[in-house]
Amino acid sequence: MEKFFGKNSIKFEPQSVEVVFNNTTKCRLCFEQDVENYSGISVNFDDKLIGMNIKIVCVGKLKEKYFKDAIAEYKKRLSRFAKVSIVQVPDEKAPEKFSAAEDERVKQIEGERILSKIKDKEYVYVTAIKGKQRSSEEFAKEIQDLATYGHSDITFVIGGSLGTSDAVNKRGDDLISFGKLTMPHQLMRVVLIEQIYRAFMINSGSPYHK
Amino acid sequence: MEKFFGKNSIKFEPQSVEVVFNNTTKCRLCFEQDVENYSGISVNFDDKLIGMNIKIVCVGKLKEKYFKDAIAEYKKRLSRFAKVSIVQVPDEKAPEKFSAAEDERVKQIEGERILSKIKDKEYVYVTAIKGKQRSSEEFAKEIQDLATYGHSDITFVIGGSLGTSDAVNKRGDDLISFGKLTMPHQLMRVVLIEQIYRAFMINSGSPYHK
Repeated sequence: MEKFFGKNSIKFEPQSVEVVFNNTTKCRLCFEQDVENYSGISVNFDDKLIGMNIKIVCVGKLKEKYFKDAIAEYKKRLSRFAKVSIVQVPDEKAPEKFSAAEDERVKQIEGERILSKIKDKEYVYVTAIKGKQRSSEEFAKEIQDLATYGHSDITFVIGGSLGTSDAVNKRGDDLISFGKLTMPHQLMRVVLIEQIYRAFMINSGSPYHK
Repeated sequence: MEKFFGKNSIKFEPQSVEVVFNNTTKCRLCFEQDVENYSGISVNFDDKLIGMNIKIVCVGKLKEKYFKDAIAEYKKRLSRFAKVSIVQVPDEKAPEKFSAAEDERVKQIEGERILSKIKDKEYVYVTAIKGKQRSSEEFAKEIQDLATYGHSDITFVIGGSLGTSDAVNKRGDDLISFGKLTMPHQLMRVVLIEQIYRAFMINSGSPYHK
């Protein structure tokens, strides 16, 4: 299979990937075995072939063992496609009864912690109920397109129980919603990482997603 | 607190519930301790006060321990509000490559198994991507209303990996969607049971849902 981007192209063979830039082969990666698919590979046309980094930034420690185990499983499965890191920033203790101002303060502090974990080059999805919903296929296509056009660092933000601050939403390249319902942010992590895994499986033509 | 339905009413006290039908007290339940809330109680105005039954009918066995544990935890938490049962019907083996006719056959067989587990009196939600999405608050309100108007048996159906048959959708009193994305039906069970638990917590005024 060969993909063209103007004068540039990427040629995929079972045992190699070849990057052609301005009609010149710039890079060739060979493998000893057949490679099932390459959907986790993204190409920078400044002469480098690099893997994809998926980062999930979230607030608060995961307490429940079953959620931890589920995330560990999907993280392991995803590792054939991308380097995955999950970064937890501390949540900010909040009083039982919230005033709007206290809400804002908590979101802002948590937001600063989130932003401190994000570099300029990262493409950032912020999860938010009011964000745009995608089908799994649409989401997979977006990830594919981001990878193809050189975004090798994709970051997802899951806010704390109050949501994300304006500053975080502003830093986001896109707001993404997984439905109208409110979920515990712990369970949201499972749903998100499964969707990311599903996206790579869809892009690799696997029957995982039917 | 007293709720009125025409000449009928339900009176809630910390240690009792009283059902008044046609200006006559028909039923009084007393408790030894203060009861925090009664959101799991529904009333049949033919003289019986009965608890709510929540049933989840799904296809195939749950393999992953972490999903099993998550569901067991929410089932336990829900038990203060309702009797919860999870009924698994066998999935139908399907060939690797599906034709539309084979898809239909698998859905139909699984559908018959699902329908065999549902009684006439049950109010049935069928989960389907194309169903109507609700916010958690709207969903909680619906459950509340169903309980109030005598639906003490609420059943949720999660189809197999191909979805539900037309017969199942037709039996459904409502189609409910939890978002545009496709989820493994195992994970869907976790999301669903958490939403049901959340609905009861919202209805009981708990700070679980903020």
